[in-house]
Amino acid sequence: MAATVDINDLPTPALILDLDAFEQNIAKMAQYCKQVGSGFRPHGKTHKSAWIARQQLNAGAVGISVATVAEAEAMAQAGIESILLTSPVVGPEKLDRLINLSGKVPEFIAAVGSKLQAERLSDLAGRRGVTVNVLVDVDVGDGRTGELPGQPALQLAQNVDRLPSLRLRGIQAYSGLSSHVVGFEARKRTSLEAMGKAAETREMFKSSGLDCSILSGGSTGTYNIDSEAGLVTELQVGSYVFMDVDYRRIGGKENPQLYDDFLPALNCLTTVVSAAHKGRVTVDAGVKALSSDAGCPPELVGRAGLSYKWFGDEFGLIEAEGDADLPKLGDRLRLIVPHCDPTVNMYDLIYLVRGERVEGAIRICARRGDQASGVELLA
Amino acid sequence: MAATVDINDLPTPALILDLDAFEQNIAKMAQYCKQVGSGFRPHGKTHKSAWIARQQLNAGAVGISVATVAEAEAMAQAGIESILLTSPVVGPEKLDRLINLSGKVPEFIAAVGSKLQAERLSDLAGRRGVTVNVLVDVDVGDGRTGELPGQPALQLAQNVDRLPSLRLRGIQAYSGLSSHVVGFEARKRTSLEAMGKAAETREMFKSSGLDCSILSGGSTGTYNIDSEAGLVTELQVGSYVFMDVDYRRIGGKENPQLYDDFLPALNCLTTVVSAAHKGRVTVDAGVKALSSDAGCPPELVGRAGLSYKWFGDEFGLIEAEGDADLPKLGDRLRLIVPHCDPTVNMYDLIYLVRGERVEGAIRICARRGDQASGVELLA
Repeated sequence: MAATVDINDLPTPALILDLDAFEQNIAKMAQYCKQVGSGFRPHGKTHKSAWIARQQLNAGAVGISVATVAEAEAMAQAGIESILLTSPVVGPEKLDRLINLSGKVPEFIAAVGSKLQAERLSDLAGRRGVTVNVLVDVDVGDGRTGELPGQPALQLAQNVDRLPSLRLRGIQAYSGLSSHVVGFEARKRTSLEAMGKAAETREMFKSSGLDCSILSGGSTGTYNIDSEAGLVTELQVGSYVFMDVDYRRIGGKENPQLYDDFLPALNCLTTVVSAAHKGRVTVDAGVKALSSDAGCPPELVGRAGLSYKWFGDEFGLIEAEGDADLPKLGDRLRLIVPHCDPTVNMYDLIYLVRGERVEGAIRICARRGDQASGVELLA
Repeated sequence: MAATVDINDLPTPALILDLDAFEQNIAKMAQYCKQVGSGFRPHGKTHKSAWIARQQLNAGAVGISVATVAEAEAMAQAGIESILLTSPVVGPEKLDRLINLSGKVPEFIAAVGSKLQAERLSDLAGRRGVTVNVLVDVDVGDGRTGELPGQPALQLAQNVDRLPSLRLRGIQAYSGLSSHVVGFEARKRTSLEAMGKAAETREMFKSSGLDCSILSGGSTGTYNIDSEAGLVTELQVGSYVFMDVDYRRIGGKENPQLYDDFLPALNCLTTVVSAAHKGRVTVDAGVKALSSDAGCPPELVGRAGLSYKWFGDEFGLIEAEGDADLPKLGDRLRLIVPHCDPTVNMYDLIYLVRGERVEGAIRICARRGDQASGVELLA
């Protein structure tokens, strides 16, 4: 039994997960999906943690989505039994690892975005005596991966269906462009248009006698749009477990000012390391501790009148407005992370806290830089 | 002996270090410093690698700079014998670890930025029977950490000098604002003004009979300004080992268009994972693989007419201009990293390559998320 550690004993910057808020988020999404009769397959790219994946499965998730082969390997290693790899994989090394996973994980599904990828995958799988479950990746507007909806996607599905070592299971369609549209009504219009294309394509699959039992898609921003419209069979929600400033600012269905359907459970704990100036102090969390990609700074928890400004790789600037209390040297502050997924990617672990008490820590797996076989680790 | 691995066998996205370019950078900085009679203490916050630190020491560096206690611990663990911690540390847990290091590392030096920090450090060190070497952190314009130049810094130095368990060794002054000023002459003016304040403060230390044998400062952008002006005794150069787009665009003394004093040795290797559209393809390196904080995208190596655009957490967009050859599905591209320090912080390892051959890999240590003692790792 580990000793009781207080949150104030943690080395900063630290990512801390407020378990009360986290558990509420986990339960709320699960209850919502149960109520509307939708499955959900939470996205592990957000948390990169088998421990969190397990909580999501315990709450009723049909499986876990992942964005990389390394994430899939980490989830498989931890005994997760249903994994969907949402990014297309084309290189021989990655395809080989994908087929390894397919042979081991009870239900492994891979998104396929092109005929060439499908052929390579079937060829390699056939040589290994494995059949790989496949979703056709449909590009509903992002233009990042997959085939265009309608005829091009149908054609890819027919190709997949003909390939001996692939088993078509349906469609994956992710509308990243819809997920962060500000204002619920505008977001609804955008998402219904995008995901409507996937639903139409699904009808074409069915009319052609193809298996399309799965339509996997949606996001934390559109969970109550795509599911209510019956556009997906399973929601690929990711950020809802943690939340971040980037999502909070899009506004919700009930609260147009703040998207508060889910609670900001993931915070960065930081320490004031310099207090030499009037009206501002320096903290030890900069762009190596908080991803700045979303264009919004982190927000302070429970400290009205204080704001954060980017201040380099190692530091952040905290400014006080009017007569707000300026923190002192050594004080600790909690920040709502600006964008959760790439922030998590910078850390080795997340601390689990209940109130002021640290209940444990969880490892973050599969950041960038997979270890290649045959390469010696020199130091 | 590990098997020979080709660069094309590596899983992407991968950080690759071109050893020929890296060795040229290491040698060039070392030769330059020798020629002008300046010491150099390269900044380990850039690479977080004891292996690279060792190459720098072998080339003549007086020691290694680090930005965090965890980096210092990793360097000490690898047997590095002279370490300067450039960021002020104030919390009890970090101070305790700092004192541990001070007792173990033959020459350990800590930057101190305030009277309170100095007192806490001396108090704890005294109780442990350790004397800690100290540089007074002088704020020459960044406003991030340290005391203002002149009287405030002198006063802090006098306080440090009076404290029983601290040993004053000199000044640290980092001008982050100077490092990236575009245009050599403008950069020179900015840096001479900033670092001139540190040099004046050093004279005040000397006149007051205080030890100021070290003035540590400077950056890759100002190495040939601060040293030639005799403003520092040791250069805290970091990025020169890797280089990045953010530095290349500032222009050099000889070449105003491109800062090419050092070669872009650190690349991100990425794979085309989707090629469904005219004039553009998608690669598997996004903001989780390349830090976007500097406001510049990565640049392609050896592929004229192609450019990179940010395309989310997992992906990048490659666009072809005019009749430039568009890469095909499965093709690999090399990208010059936009900003090296926070990019390295996202990876578990860096591959060392010579031409197309992978010679090994090195671990990246001490990303964010230090493990706290007494906290159980649950998964």
